[in-house]
Amino acid sequence: MYSLPQRLLAEAVGAAFLLMAVVGSGIAAERLSPNDGGLQLFENAVATAFALTALIWAFGPISGAHFNPAVTWAEVVQRMRPVKEGVAYSVAQVAGGIAGVVLANLMFGLPAVQWSQTRRSGPELWLAEVVATLGLLMTIFLIARTRSGAVAVAPAVGLYIGAAYFFTSSTSFANPAVTVARMFSDTFAGIHPASAPVFIVMQAAGAGLAVALVWALRRRAIDEPGGCA
Amino acid sequence: MYSLPQRLLAEAVGAAFLLMAVVGSGIAAERLSPNDGGLQLFENAVATAFALTALIWAFGPISGAHFNPAVTWAEVVQRMRPVKEGVAYSVAQVAGGIAGVVLANLMFGLPAVQWSQTRRSGPELWLAEVVATLGLLMTIFLIARTRSGAVAVAPAVGLYIGAAYFFTSSTSFANPAVTVARMFSDTFAGIHPASAPVFIVMQAAGAGLAVALVWALRRRAIDEPGGCA
Amino acid sequence: MYSLPQRLLAEAVGAAFLLMAVVGSGIAAERLSPNDGGLQLFENAVATAFALTALIWAFGPISGAHFNPAVTWAEVVQRMRPVKEGVAYSVAQVAGGIAGVVLANLMFGLPAVQWSQTRRSGPELWLAEVVATLGLLMTIFLIARTRSGAVAVAPAVGLYIGAAYFFTSSTSFANPAVTVARMFSDTFAGIHPASAPVFIVMQAAGAGLAVALVWALRRRAIDEPGGCA
Amino acid sequence: MYSLPQRLLAEAVGAAFLLMAVVGSGIAAERLSPNDGGLQLFENAVATAFALTALIWAFGPISGAHFNPAVTWAEVVQRMRPVKEGVAYSVAQVAGGIAGVVLANLMFGLPAVQWSQTRRSGPELWLAEVVATLGLLMTIFLIARTRSGAVAVAPAVGLYIGAAYFFTSSTSFANPAVTVARMFSDTFAGIHPASAPVFIVMQAAGAGLAVALVWALRRRAIDEPGGCA
Repeated sequence: MYSLPQRLLAEAVGAAFLLMAVVGSGIAAERLSPNDGGLQLFENAVATAFALTALIWAFGPISGAHFNPAVTWAEVVQRMRPVKEGVAYSVAQVAGGIAGVVLANLMFGLPAVQWSQTRRSGPELWLAEVVATLGLLMTIFLIARTRSGAVAVAPAVGLYIGAAYFFTSSTSFANPAVTVARMFSDTFAGIHPASAPVFIVMQAAGAGLAVALVWALRRRAIDEPGGCA
Repeated sequence: MYSLPQRLLAEAVGAAFLLMAVVGSGIAAERLSPNDGGLQLFENAVATAFALTALIWAFGPISGAHFNPAVTWAEVVQRMRPVKEGVAYSVAQVAGGIAGVVLANLMFGLPAVQWSQTRRSGPELWLAEVVATLGLLMTIFLIARTRSGAVAVAPAVGLYIGAAYFFTSSTSFANPAVTVARMFSDTFAGIHPASAPVFIVMQAAGAGLAVALVWALRRRAIDEPGGCA
Repeated sequence: MYSLPQRLLAEAVGAAFLLMAVVGSGIAAERLSPNDGGLQLFENAVATAFALTALIWAFGPISGAHFNPAVTWAEVVQRMRPVKEGVAYSVAQVAGGIAGVVLANLMFGLPAVQWSQTRRSGPELWLAEVVATLGLLMTIFLIARTRSGAVAVAPAVGLYIGAAYFFTSSTSFANPAVTVARMFSDTFAGIHPASAPVFIVMQAAGAGLAVALVWALRRRAIDEPGGCA
Repeated sequence: MYSLPQRLLAEAVGAAFLLMAVVGSGIAAERLSPNDGGLQLFENAVATAFALTALIWAFGPISGAHFNPAVTWAEVVQRMRPVKEGVAYSVAQVAGGIAGVVLANLMFGLPAVQWSQTRRSGPELWLAEVVATLGLLMTIFLIARTRSGAVAVAPAVGLYIGAAYFFTSSTSFANPAVTVARMFSDTFAGIHPASAPVFIVMQAAGAGLAVALVWALRRRAIDEPGGCA
């Protein structure tokens, strides 16, 4: 077993690398593919999906590899994790995420901290965040309880987020720690601090829907009869 | 085990997310990559492939994760599933799919329901739908019966569809529920209602060929001698 | 176990779908992305890689999913398969491959059979075919003998070929059946009949090198001590 | 078990194919996608990620599939491997890598050996190499010790590197053997010999940080309680 400090370290380092992937690849895409916004988003989405999968495989056995307070608090609500741990995880996720954004800024020769000027607002984006977070948490919790979950949850989450960058109009933040951290870079992936609170409320709503859906789909007995994998 | 209502819920929610992925990423691709139709289709194909894999991992253990009446009825024909369930699954798949298209429209600021004006017709597209559906169902049924099927069928279906978007001239609908639902968005992925019936007939033909092929390739005994995975 | 006719059917159908993926996605890429040859090749490579992975998962437990006389004859040389079967497999692979090209042509509204006018010749392309085939067969035979081989060989082959489309100057035919079949479409993936024989000789040379390398790297005892996967 | 010469052969051949993938796909991308630097890097990143995954699956059971002195020496430091073997592995990795670059040059009709003129220097690139190498080694060592490590480490490394090409400003060399070998091609992936030494120092620093992090995250007992995969 891992101690709480080890698990918090895992959440913080994982969130830092996730945010480096999100923000860093956004900067690179914006600079290198200036003429096609779809290509920029595609490069950003694939880099995020790839990094997220690797990070969940690496940190999953240690801390669960949430990197996301919406996931952590959905576990608290389902009584899978104590409230105190929910708070500690959230702090580690946000702190790690901001550190990752600072590192991304520095790696690309920008000031360590900026405030994003990108406003992201409007009912269609808010709906998108509800949908994106519902889909993410539903994917995680439904897969995690299966026998093949230990291997499949990492690529499933990476693939889901890679897709959701494109199929939701908000480009799928779906994560309060990521939302806060992305305020600190005035680049492709940034979000204006004034736009962040509503995004986080919508993510909480999506998380609530996911918990309800997973509860409705709870299994009565073991769902995979025998065999490995 | 899961109750029938649980399984129908799984089929409906899964189909809704599948259609959001198909239609939503099509809208995003069309808007963001206006100058290259291949890039648009590529973004659409990858988003669909990624989402489909995640969804099958999530819902497979609950309902089988068909999201596709062609798959469900191929099971009915093979006496793997009762007729009543085939009807119920189909209704859930179509209803979920339409809900997903409505959500995709709303997420991108479009009217909730539109009729597609995109005519898709002609013998080469019809041939493509036969081939696409044959390949899809052959992939599903041949992999599902192997020991590694529980893990591999999800990425296999995602990868197959991602490829078939490009290698069939119809961009591989291969699914009657998807075909019906895509009538309701006048965007990249739409299909004019007048074009849908022949597509569905061709999909049924492809499904029939797949059942025949899988029957011809039925195994006589266990095909993977021992070992895990 | 599967009968020889079943295995030949599997090889033929698999080769047909592989060639549809190669030639069909090449036609789509050429038409839809006319302004960037790299994007065309990328779309072609990803479609091929995705399809190949799905097909190997589907047909691997039946016939081995070679779709490639270089693989089949490398098994014959290693005394893993009788000569007669090598001949039968090769006929099925070439016949299936040509059928796939015909279907690809028809799906895209082209004459069923064309002769390619694309000459592919020169020492650097020939070297590339030796390298590409060596890498492909080395990947297959080294992974197939491991415990995780039953699951991993399919994505490994798909990923290898997807990469080799880009890192070899010949775009990695690496397969005599594919080479013959690609003579029959005067589109993106075609090869002039006059260019095919040397390609096949180079593929045979690469296969020979792979057999030698795999022999040099033969294991003395079981290489993965315990545990599943 | 495999003898030391077999393992050195595996490291050399694997490194050669890795460098062919890196340098060859870079040449192809530069030639075929001349108008978009992001697309070039994306093609290069995906080809590298795909090839690396296949190669680790192929050679992992034989030599560990490091292809990277930073990984080998991190094992030496952790007393997982004797110093003598560290030296032998490193020589094989560098020699194989250079052979791969020569083959890539020849496959694309270039002189066998060139000196790269691409200077890569500056504090932001150096920081990027520290981060890239830390992330790579952390991914490898954390996954390798889990039960699913034997299957997951190969795609995890491929995905991580594919992402890191985009999210680090240096495009993530993260490997001293790759750094040395890439001096020998004056193409997309090249690095001027004067820029290489600092890159290697930074990679060593990143490797040191990774060893410290993995040590801090060492488990006290078995971390995955039961079940396969």
